[in-house]
Amino acid sequence: MQDIELMKSLTQAGNTKAILLVLDGLGGLPREIGGPTELEAAFTPNMDKLARESSVGLINTVDIGITPGSGPGHFGLFGYDPLKHLIGRGVLEAVGIGMTLTEQDVAARGNFCTVDENGLITDRRAGRISTEECARMVSLIDDIKLPGIEVIVKTVQDYRFVLILRGPRLSSALNETDPQKVGIKPLKLRPLDGSLEARNTADLVNQWVAEASERIRDQKPANMVTLRGWSSEPGLPKFEDVFKMKAVALAVYPMYKGLASLVGMTCVNGLRNLDDQLAVLEQKWTEFDFFFFHHKYTDSRGEDGDFDAKVKEIEKVDAIIPRILQLCPDVLVITGDHSTPAVLKSHSWHPVPIILWAPGMTRSNPDVTGFGESQCLKGALGQFNASNLMKLITAHALRQVKYGA
Amino acid sequence: MQDIELMKSLTQAGNTKAILLVLDGLGGLPREIGGPTELEAAFTPNMDKLARESSVGLINTVDIGITPGSGPGHFGLFGYDPLKHLIGRGVLEAVGIGMTLTEQDVAARGNFCTVDENGLITDRRAGRISTEECARMVSLIDDIKLPGIEVIVKTVQDYRFVLILRGPRLSSALNETDPQKVGIKPLKLRPLDGSLEARNTADLVNQWVAEASERIRDQKPANMVTLRGWSSEPGLPKFEDVFKMKAVALAVYPMYKGLASLVGMTCVNGLRNLDDQLAVLEQKWTEFDFFFFHHKYTDSRGEDGDFDAKVKEIEKVDAIIPRILQLCPDVLVITGDHSTPAVLKSHSWHPVPIILWAPGMTRSNPDVTGFGESQCLKGALGQFNASNLMKLITAHALRQVKYGA
Repeated sequence: MQDIELMKSLTQAGNTKAILLVLDGLGGLPREIGGPTELEAAFTPNMDKLARESSVGLINTVDIGITPGSGPGHFGLFGYDPLKHLIGRGVLEAVGIGMTLTEQDVAARGNFCTVDENGLITDRRAGRISTEECARMVSLIDDIKLPGIEVIVKTVQDYRFVLILRGPRLSSALNETDPQKVGIKPLKLRPLDGSLEARNTADLVNQWVAEASERIRDQKPANMVTLRGWSSEPGLPKFEDVFKMKAVALAVYPMYKGLASLVGMTCVNGLRNLDDQLAVLEQKWTEFDFFFFHHKYTDSRGEDGDFDAKVKEIEKVDAIIPRILQLCPDVLVITGDHSTPAVLKSHSWHPVPIILWAPGMTRSNPDVTGFGESQCLKGALGQFNASNLMKLITAHALRQVKYGA
Repeated sequence: MQDIELMKSLTQAGNTKAILLVLDGLGGLPREIGGPTELEAAFTPNMDKLARESSVGLINTVDIGITPGSGPGHFGLFGYDPLKHLIGRGVLEAVGIGMTLTEQDVAARGNFCTVDENGLITDRRAGRISTEECARMVSLIDDIKLPGIEVIVKTVQDYRFVLILRGPRLSSALNETDPQKVGIKPLKLRPLDGSLEARNTADLVNQWVAEASERIRDQKPANMVTLRGWSSEPGLPKFEDVFKMKAVALAVYPMYKGLASLVGMTCVNGLRNLDDQLAVLEQKWTEFDFFFFHHKYTDSRGEDGDFDAKVKEIEKVDAIIPRILQLCPDVLVITGDHSTPAVLKSHSWHPVPIILWAPGMTRSNPDVTGFGESQCLKGALGQFNASNLMKLITAHALRQVKYGA
């Protein structure tokens, strides 16, 4: 049985409350053989105490040996196996800048690129133009009209934008126009299935590309666009329907609110920092029973390659634990959506440490004295794929009935 | 998503190099309760040092509680889940004696057996005749002709031979003729589907069996044949297409070259021992980027039930590690294709110890001081199925892009 269907059939409403505290990119690597990771180097007296009182372990948010992007990493944590629930890049880019998609929308990720006088691509990313330049380019093409539908163009980052078509009879069954190499022309849009909708959408987008190309042909630093990652709102089963917990996302960055919104979590806007997030956590405590609390900067400092700064971000989160515990959650999970070792300056495949704290409900791991990758090896949870995490959270929140008589 | 498709979509070309060093049948058992296994008894200073500097763990090459044959064990290591990619026994026997199969071939494993005057089987293995006797029996039937196709018969080992039909309009959808018990006649060949090819092949093989039976009816120690394991070249996705690593097999025994060739690895012939294998490893270092290096005799001594001799084989391989490390591989994996405990004198289902060494890329396992089954329990890799190993190898070789945005 699919996990989602299984959970739907076993979970039940209740009064217990769970917090999922995600330190983005939490997992790390030692700087030298035998040395501590970022988490092990950090002074984390609060998380260390929780580790001793809880079950700890290690999770693969997608699967063993796979490096998760932010989308798949979070869907794993939310209980949706990222290898079964694929979300297209267009949708991820759109939710990543805080857009809410409707069921009618079709989204694509766009690149600004450069072509020569014959229309042949010379740079697929237009020299990786800045976000400011991208915004100026977007302003030249964001009012192109197409018959019968709404067209939305938004700046994302660097050379990337998102194109959204909103209206009836649209389909995301379209090819990518980026040929993935230079020296040839961007491809024409064509339908990937025989549906009327796909043919209609291909025609419309070809019109849009022709008009966009005409408008920016003499521009610098980019003079053409390519489109890829055609996708629609994925229609995922709603988190509350599956797990029977009313969920709210407390995140600063649009991307993470967007990911939470794709599974139907309520999103709070205007949060600027941990203090704002804590204040809203406290305000909303009676209103919801699942709280996704996201901290971005552990990942950012890992991507920067700044080991010490990542350590400091972990310590900042450790410092808020006492205030979180004052709310007396039934379940508190502390983990990450993937590893971002400072030594690699990027997301990685290494399993992520996890604390599952639920007073009176967890097995102890007597050899664990603190929170860190090596200690989690000795944890009561072992190593597992994160798409099982919501099973554990609902179980420890006493929100599951037994399977079978 | 199927693992193979997933890997195909995530891996990329690069300059890094990986070595997969397989000690056949590496895993073992203690001779007495609490005693060391073969690996733990062996003096392995080089592997012990690697274990301390790497991530170690335990693998099931097929699945927990399953005893792998050599074929499935290696396919697991090569990243092809042996429970999803079934290779027929006929093909395994053929590649096991170093034959290269074409897409036209259909292969069966044959047994010499004995029948009484009424044609009823009296011994399904003809008293387990020797390989020499088998070769003499094969010489009596290896020139039987069939219309329109080529027929190849080759000695394998003991009472076993392989029959290969090569030509157009053949099918492996045939029944086994061995009834699996004595006192009844070998079964006639019949097609297992309605295809013309299967009917045609059944007719041809019945002709062949009739002629073979006629030729050896008065022979001793065997006077009849049975056929089973009908199969064709499996058409597996090629290793290089899936993992983007150009692979070469350095093995002494034909079986292991054959297995490697089924996934498209280049095979080097004429290697007689570890020295030959090392010399070619060094010669080919710039030409390939994945090196499957196979040592057979750990398994052979385990099958013999000779604990001490298996220990010595492990020590022989330990002694070559420094020379391997001089090549500065990016990833070095040391493991086995299954366990062959001397106390069992056979392959077994016990998980196999593994070292995953990749400088700067691996999590540490601080409680591990050397390489052995008990120490690997405390390893950073945990226990996992070997079909995930190539995910880890390509990840640590920085040959994977992240999954999703």
